[in-house]
Amino acid sequence: MNKAKLLLGPGPSNANQRVLDAMSAPLIGHLDPEFLEVMAAIKEMLQRTFQTRNHLTFAVSAPGSAGMETCLVNLLDPGDEALICVHGVFGNRMSDIVERCGAKLIRVDAPWGEPVDPLQVKDALEKCNPKLVAIVHAETSTGVLQPLEEISKMVHEAGSLLVVDAVTSFCGTTLKIDDWGIDAVYSGSQKCLSAPPGLSPVSFSERAVEVVHNRKSKVQSWFLDLSLVSNYWQGAKRAYHHTAPVSSMFALKEALTLVVEEGLENRYARHWQAHELLKSGMESLGFELLVKQGFRLPMLNAIKLPDHIDDAAVRKQLLDDYGIEIGAGLGDFAGKVWRIGLMGENARPESVDRLLTAIKEIS
Amino acid sequence: MNKAKLLLGPGPSNANQRVLDAMSAPLIGHLDPEFLEVMAAIKEMLQRTFQTRNHLTFAVSAPGSAGMETCLVNLLDPGDEALICVHGVFGNRMSDIVERCGAKLIRVDAPWGEPVDPLQVKDALEKCNPKLVAIVHAETSTGVLQPLEEISKMVHEAGSLLVVDAVTSFCGTTLKIDDWGIDAVYSGSQKCLSAPPGLSPVSFSERAVEVVHNRKSKVQSWFLDLSLVSNYWQGAKRAYHHTAPVSSMFALKEALTLVVEEGLENRYARHWQAHELLKSGMESLGFELLVKQGFRLPMLNAIKLPDHIDDAAVRKQLLDDYGIEIGAGLGDFAGKVWRIGLMGENARPESVDRLLTAIKEIS
Repeated sequence: MNKAKLLLGPGPSNANQRVLDAMSAPLIGHLDPEFLEVMAAIKEMLQRTFQTRNHLTFAVSAPGSAGMETCLVNLLDPGDEALICVHGVFGNRMSDIVERCGAKLIRVDAPWGEPVDPLQVKDALEKCNPKLVAIVHAETSTGVLQPLEEISKMVHEAGSLLVVDAVTSFCGTTLKIDDWGIDAVYSGSQKCLSAPPGLSPVSFSERAVEVVHNRKSKVQSWFLDLSLVSNYWQGAKRAYHHTAPVSSMFALKEALTLVVEEGLENRYARHWQAHELLKSGMESLGFELLVKQGFRLPMLNAIKLPDHIDDAAVRKQLLDDYGIEIGAGLGDFAGKVWRIGLMGENARPESVDRLLTAIKEIS
Repeated sequence: MNKAKLLLGPGPSNANQRVLDAMSAPLIGHLDPEFLEVMAAIKEMLQRTFQTRNHLTFAVSAPGSAGMETCLVNLLDPGDEALICVHGVFGNRMSDIVERCGAKLIRVDAPWGEPVDPLQVKDALEKCNPKLVAIVHAETSTGVLQPLEEISKMVHEAGSLLVVDAVTSFCGTTLKIDDWGIDAVYSGSQKCLSAPPGLSPVSFSERAVEVVHNRKSKVQSWFLDLSLVSNYWQGAKRAYHHTAPVSSMFALKEALTLVVEEGLENRYARHWQAHELLKSGMESLGFELLVKQGFRLPMLNAIKLPDHIDDAAVRKQLLDDYGIEIGAGLGDFAGKVWRIGLMGENARPESVDRLLTAIKEIS
């Protein structure tokens, strides 16, 4: 049994003991009425935390990347156009999946570390007619918080669906699926929700469900096919599709219960307070944040690495000597930034203090 | 916290307390060297339990159906021929996935409740040139144990790959990946391995890996693409692909440790002993087994339902009053058979006694 480490990377974050305890409850069957109640509770709490009335709201039985794939493979038929906004690793990943769907990829690229400018989307929409526009709300690779409301209006005026990656933002900063007109959203269990990794909460608007119903071809993935999965998650029949990860769902239910008990606004505020503490602490140690003011994520802080810091060595020392994990740079930012996560259970002054003290001692 | 039920359905089976305790250990990062050691231990124990030296042996971060899809989407290019043996629900599911791959499906059908006759496969192989032949070793929907060695020879003589569904047989009855010439195999964590559901152990022969390397097109699933996943599971780089379900992997490691401690032969024998006890007990109560002698699975017993038994009512009473879950019939067998699982932790005389006593009292 390992001693608890403080997980301040890009996820997983630490889970509350209540979540770990719930997960280790004795197993029950995936069609047991008792488990169907767990699923119903998860759905209801996901609707509350996503701030949506979407009927098709559930957790994909696989990590966030499978949630991403669920959204794209169900909404795209071969030959469809998809406009993907790319400003980091996860926009790239969406582009890759779009091509694997046999859809026509149109990209809008912004420099890494900056948000996508709504005007770029507007220009692109004048030149194509995409079935969907997809964008990352919280780019975990860069620490950018992407404003969505203006883009959402443009997307709907163009008659397209809006798909949003909320893997890192969900339960950590404001995310309003219905008010913002998001048609498909996916997240992960292991970030600001602080459940163990392995599940991907998703939600689909009625418009998106309609598109899925009117597909010309079968969804290329049997496992992720919403027309099959939804028969297990909703309706009277509860048809067997796959064997649900029962223990992980126990954990997800308890993690959502903690969010609901705390209240979304309180939880968001706690993430922003921890972020402010980290920001001023790191700045006083001579570090700079990568992302400009106004577009910074509270739960994922990209910190520029000064030349005198040996990236890998310091991260190793933090992990080995202090039991603190922080994240390395990804893609273009490998070796150039640290990614410091203050997610869910870890978005607290104690986490920030422990990290700042350690960095002070090391550097 | 729910009181432990006795899970004698088609899975999940009950997990050992050691497995539940391991799962609830504090989380660590999915790139933490400590977690990479967990992955290495899982790989090594999967090689032992699959009885293979296959380098590409790991656990897919999703349930058995995703393991099935992993095997098929990686090995098939659009236009390839695939010969699928169907004698129950899971052969049908493979056929469905083959079509979603854009491959040409050729089916060999056997009556539900019977194994596929090697001669059927021989005949079919004379009329086509499939890239792979896929077959279910343990049909969980019918309780049939499919002999594989003779079919394996034919498949390789025809120059095809052999893909095997071992979801229910793995760790419960003899399964020799290398000796039997199986090129791709997938299983599930929640059956005879008695870990919680959510992971799918898989293994690929060098021949299969070669086929994946020589694909003409990208794998249609990003999440299941072996060329990407394998960079996380093996090699020095351990490249980030998706966030692994850390807690579920802790559980899988402990469940595999229990199998290795017990020894495969002992574990197989324990499953057969429990099966014999159940068989004679049920027969003495007037029930008949669906599958003929010699082709019965030890861990999944399909029992014919006499007319006077009210299927759903008795199963509900077993669950509500006795805390025992058994499985309903699937597909063609809905309402006609019970599926009694004696898997992993539950393949013990105590489980059989508890069930027989309850059925005696109810009927």
